[in-house]
Amino acid sequence: MLILLKSGVSATQIEAISARARELHLVPQPVRSGAQEIVSLTGQTSGIDPAAFSALPGVARVMMVHAPYRLASREFQPADTTVDVSGVRIGPGQFTVMAGPCSIESQAQATDAANAVKAAGAHMLRGGLFKPRTSPYSFQGIGENGAGLMDEIRARTGLRFVTEAIDEDSLSLIEQHAGMIQIGARNMQNFSLLRRAGKSRLPVMVKRGMSATLEEWLNAADYVLSGGNPNVVLCERGIRTFNTHARNTLDLGIIPAAREVTHLPIIVDPSHGTGNSAHVPAMALAAMAAGADGLLVEVHPDPGHALSDGEQSLTPDRFNAMMKQLRALAPAFGRAM
Amino acid sequence: MLILLKSGVSATQIEAISARARELHLVPQPVRSGAQEIVSLTGQTSGIDPAAFSALPGVARVMMVHAPYRLASREFQPADTTVDVSGVRIGPGQFTVMAGPCSIESQAQATDAANAVKAAGAHMLRGGLFKPRTSPYSFQGIGENGAGLMDEIRARTGLRFVTEAIDEDSLSLIEQHAGMIQIGARNMQNFSLLRRAGKSRLPVMVKRGMSATLEEWLNAADYVLSGGNPNVVLCERGIRTFNTHARNTLDLGIIPAAREVTHLPIIVDPSHGTGNSAHVPAMALAAMAAGADGLLVEVHPDPGHALSDGEQSLTPDRFNAMMKQLRALAPAFGRAM
Amino acid sequence: MLILLKSGVSATQIEAISARARELHLVPQPVRSGAQEIVSLTGQTSGIDPAAFSALPGVARVMMVHAPYRLASREFQPADTTVDVSGVRIGPGQFTVMAGPCSIESQAQATDAANAVKAAGAHMLRGGLFKPRTSPYSFQGIGENGAGLMDEIRARTGLRFVTEAIDEDSLSLIEQHAGMIQIGARNMQNFSLLRRAGKSRLPVMVKRGMSATLEEWLNAADYVLSGGNPNVVLCERGIRTFNTHARNTLDLGIIPAAREVTHLPIIVDPSHGTGNSAHVPAMALAAMAAGADGLLVEVHPDPGHALSDGEQSLTPDRFNAMMKQLRALAPAFGRAM
Amino acid sequence: MLILLKSGVSATQIEAISARARELHLVPQPVRSGAQEIVSLTGQTSGIDPAAFSALPGVARVMMVHAPYRLASREFQPADTTVDVSGVRIGPGQFTVMAGPCSIESQAQATDAANAVKAAGAHMLRGGLFKPRTSPYSFQGIGENGAGLMDEIRARTGLRFVTEAIDEDSLSLIEQHAGMIQIGARNMQNFSLLRRAGKSRLPVMVKRGMSATLEEWLNAADYVLSGGNPNVVLCERGIRTFNTHARNTLDLGIIPAAREVTHLPIIVDPSHGTGNSAHVPAMALAAMAAGADGLLVEVHPDPGHALSDGEQSLTPDRFNAMMKQLRALAPAFGRAM
Repeated sequence: MLILLKSGVSATQIEAISARARELHLVPQPVRSGAQEIVSLTGQTSGIDPAAFSALPGVARVMMVHAPYRLASREFQPADTTVDVSGVRIGPGQFTVMAGPCSIESQAQATDAANAVKAAGAHMLRGGLFKPRTSPYSFQGIGENGAGLMDEIRARTGLRFVTEAIDEDSLSLIEQHAGMIQIGARNMQNFSLLRRAGKSRLPVMVKRGMSATLEEWLNAADYVLSGGNPNVVLCERGIRTFNTHARNTLDLGIIPAAREVTHLPIIVDPSHGTGNSAHVPAMALAAMAAGADGLLVEVHPDPGHALSDGEQSLTPDRFNAMMKQLRALAPAFGRAM
Repeated sequence: MLILLKSGVSATQIEAISARARELHLVPQPVRSGAQEIVSLTGQTSGIDPAAFSALPGVARVMMVHAPYRLASREFQPADTTVDVSGVRIGPGQFTVMAGPCSIESQAQATDAANAVKAAGAHMLRGGLFKPRTSPYSFQGIGENGAGLMDEIRARTGLRFVTEAIDEDSLSLIEQHAGMIQIGARNMQNFSLLRRAGKSRLPVMVKRGMSATLEEWLNAADYVLSGGNPNVVLCERGIRTFNTHARNTLDLGIIPAAREVTHLPIIVDPSHGTGNSAHVPAMALAAMAAGADGLLVEVHPDPGHALSDGEQSLTPDRFNAMMKQLRALAPAFGRAM
Repeated sequence: MLILLKSGVSATQIEAISARARELHLVPQPVRSGAQEIVSLTGQTSGIDPAAFSALPGVARVMMVHAPYRLASREFQPADTTVDVSGVRIGPGQFTVMAGPCSIESQAQATDAANAVKAAGAHMLRGGLFKPRTSPYSFQGIGENGAGLMDEIRARTGLRFVTEAIDEDSLSLIEQHAGMIQIGARNMQNFSLLRRAGKSRLPVMVKRGMSATLEEWLNAADYVLSGGNPNVVLCERGIRTFNTHARNTLDLGIIPAAREVTHLPIIVDPSHGTGNSAHVPAMALAAMAAGADGLLVEVHPDPGHALSDGEQSLTPDRFNAMMKQLRALAPAFGRAM
Repeated sequence: MLILLKSGVSATQIEAISARARELHLVPQPVRSGAQEIVSLTGQTSGIDPAAFSALPGVARVMMVHAPYRLASREFQPADTTVDVSGVRIGPGQFTVMAGPCSIESQAQATDAANAVKAAGAHMLRGGLFKPRTSPYSFQGIGENGAGLMDEIRARTGLRFVTEAIDEDSLSLIEQHAGMIQIGARNMQNFSLLRRAGKSRLPVMVKRGMSATLEEWLNAADYVLSGGNPNVVLCERGIRTFNTHARNTLDLGIIPAAREVTHLPIIVDPSHGTGNSAHVPAMALAAMAAGADGLLVEVHPDPGHALSDGEQSLTPDRFNAMMKQLRALAPAFGRAM
């Protein structure tokens, strides 16, 4: 942490800044760097608020040198993490596809979808019991009644679900039935929920918030990791911008940027990232090319009758065609599917 | 709801669209409007997902004519709402100022802050027990130990607190001690928490999410209102943009826009909206001029030692000077302070 | 300029960085600040691209300490600038209102508008001859034929126009007839046009680009100032965000932020900043309260028949009412109108 | 164009709306669609401002049914366009790579770069004579002195340049020496320049503006096309968002979206799209996978000494490795390189 001082800063002001640092268990060292006076702070800076210094007299600017997250960082763990979901691996050398409906709606729908995506080669299922919906009047998910269906489908297909938890109660339920817990974009900074996920024995997929920076996303991962759960998968699903041609702006450029600083696997959700099923295959292929470790894709046996997200759901046929393309490309990117 | 059809749409396709509408208990009416064929849908459209139609063959575009929110809407209630917080009114003709520290840190700090803002004319106190922090290593709030302090300060000053709930447990605690519950920006789409707030007997302040549209914000209010709690106050606190000159971009333009469509009171948080205490007074005055019903302002007896948000906290003196300016202006805007 | 070095940087790498600095006529000074090694660079850094260093081995990050703009900066000129437009002053202590139609459409329309805004107390007229339009098929302005009209109206009313130049030819024409040249938001980084404006004898109003940072805006001002023209007025007109409730997001928070770093006057365009005439008066009052030096407002005698921007144009009556409110408030903000 | 009417609209108001439509040579047709009254307008709506109607009494909302651009649209030309740059084809079935330095700096630098990218398989050269720079104190390009160098390099390598024009004068110069004219992101709405480009005999590459929607981008193309120049190539180069991990947010999702509505070729600039040479190859591969028709890539023989954009320039070796990967993948996407 570097404190840049204003020109004309007094010795008393520098001492006050240094005293504040010592209160926070940091070691201050004033240096003159050319015309610029600086106080350098070393120690455990990752929980320190820059505001602790920026409001003090004589301070021009506070610069963080180290990222605030620790456990998600490559400084903490240089080698890539592979997350194991009941035998399905997510990480380097793999390209893991999780597919299925936005919501589990009925036995027929969920079973049809599961059979179809399994036949096409998906490694895991997706499907929500509890749907965070913008409007309180929209379909809110089948709820706990769907939990048995998840078990049934798993028994039949051998595939595990990644399913969203929207609060601590739903997390406790999902934990009993799913293979991986999803923290949705709207809950990426629901810190109570992240802490609860940190206590789970299941791997956790943390979707990027709609307006989250890379640093905030990795801080969210650190909430889970610091709770004792080392199995975190990141999922890019598009950010909110001024664009009107897509539901969200899929930020594939975050993949190489995140790779530099974190060891966690990163998958991509091209369904939310486009909001348009016709655009999903192009972005799924682009995600693989950009270096993603896998995909989260919406597939519905009858998108026109989906209770949520039908607009962005692939039909089983279209999904199957996309999987063929992905499998053909995977070796060029050193990925097994 | 209008379904614009593609040119060359077939009668069979129109019939399939109409059938889908009837399944959703809507009344379809195909019309030709110039060269454009349309199916108009009437009925209870506010919970209907446009995707229910957009994926059907022959559909060019789905246009929502009515906003999805109901209870927050002026169509539901034309007259402005006044929310009463234990005798403090928030709404037309008032300008209600809630001030105090970001976090309650200690008895001395909370008492000093409360005395100072009361002396300056604040109508309510702000102060958090549980702080949603981007990093798990930052100060997370004093927690439930601060609840007694809130009671003590209220007994001494007669002022009620608006305090943030971050999950259902903290809401249940805060409900016993505060005057109004705050739903923070990061939780604006934490629908479980909103539903719980809808069951509370206390008024609820819903802060706008960092990337929330006006429509999403009013949908969040509808989650609370539809739970049976009619006392909702909106709070604009800045949105996330590409700007680097401020922590957030305070969107005062949403005030006249929101006024047209909602009857709920709207207050402004210039502290988060700027992130810089030197800019707070200008934006507080601008908020009053733009038509706000009040302010939520951070004041700390010693901003340089604040455990959170010191950078944006006013000193008591600066707050007092700002209150004088606001009181001088209030009559010009028909506001009592 | 500070070059933060990677841990483990070699002496050879530091020497290469220093050598590069000397090539650029900068003075390098390596310092160790706590655990962090830094090379501080002093000299004329304002035209230096951080990329000159960031691609070198051993470099972790390049931090600019000083803003790249010079002449617009308070470091260059501490006292506020007042710009004089043929006797109309724009700057501290004044609140200068420029009003009129988006486009000059005809003698009758321009004359009616000029008479109306003069009667209401406007200090200058606005009105375009050349309109930058998103679509090539939209009305592009009356063009050079309107120049005579500007002279005629000036002779009759005594009011000067601020008028947009869209290229060097139109600037040369406008220079003969207007009181101030407007550089539009879409041309804020049309550097050839800015350089040409720097050669003009007329004051220049630089509108903020739709996605321009404060720093980029002041760099644009520096293009004009460094050409020898000291009379630059800044105009905030709203930025592009994800918002859908307004045409643009009016960023009033940039006023106190800009005041800290620049001496140039700042006016606000609430017409483009909202896109909705019903929202203009609230934002005009808020602009004054936030510290603006004046307004640029669209007024049209018959908004329903405007050839451009009718949606955001005030009627003369509504403008007159707004001017009364502004005049009543001005003394509280130390402004003469 | 659909005019949605307010409930309770009067017959007189509907007639006034219809009269306004007829003034604009449109044919109005009032229809009742369920509970919603609508006036549908047909005719040449693409130059019509919605504001012509939105300010009229009784109007609730104006909805554009057809895009405002014409010539760039698939409705105008269903089949994909192939642009021919002196024998190099850009369009379906090709993957055209344009590479070279940001700026032409010297004979040695330009020649080295040209030789290197030719050896690696590039089809065209990039390199600027005139650089639009945010700061007036930054290197502004070698200027017209570089024109001879372009001829020399072309004679030696047989490769044509794509070079940016920043105003009408520079366009006239570049036209004599380059193979394709580039309109930069900052000039995407410099309509005078676009019109001038429409008169050129050379193909024109229109880079997407930093905050341009798809519709605005295609309108910019229409400025060129409607001037009589049918050879327009679109270039996505990243948009401005809240992201801090990259210089711009590369919006690959616009490729499938644009394909649906326009017949023009689309290439991608991963250099500006990331701002970081280490991230360029991943995004170049992703661009091909997303359906791009080619790339515009910065390559510099010595990025650490580049006078502009060194941070995002590939070394010749890294470019060569990337070209090998692209060539290996091209057949899977039906592209010849």
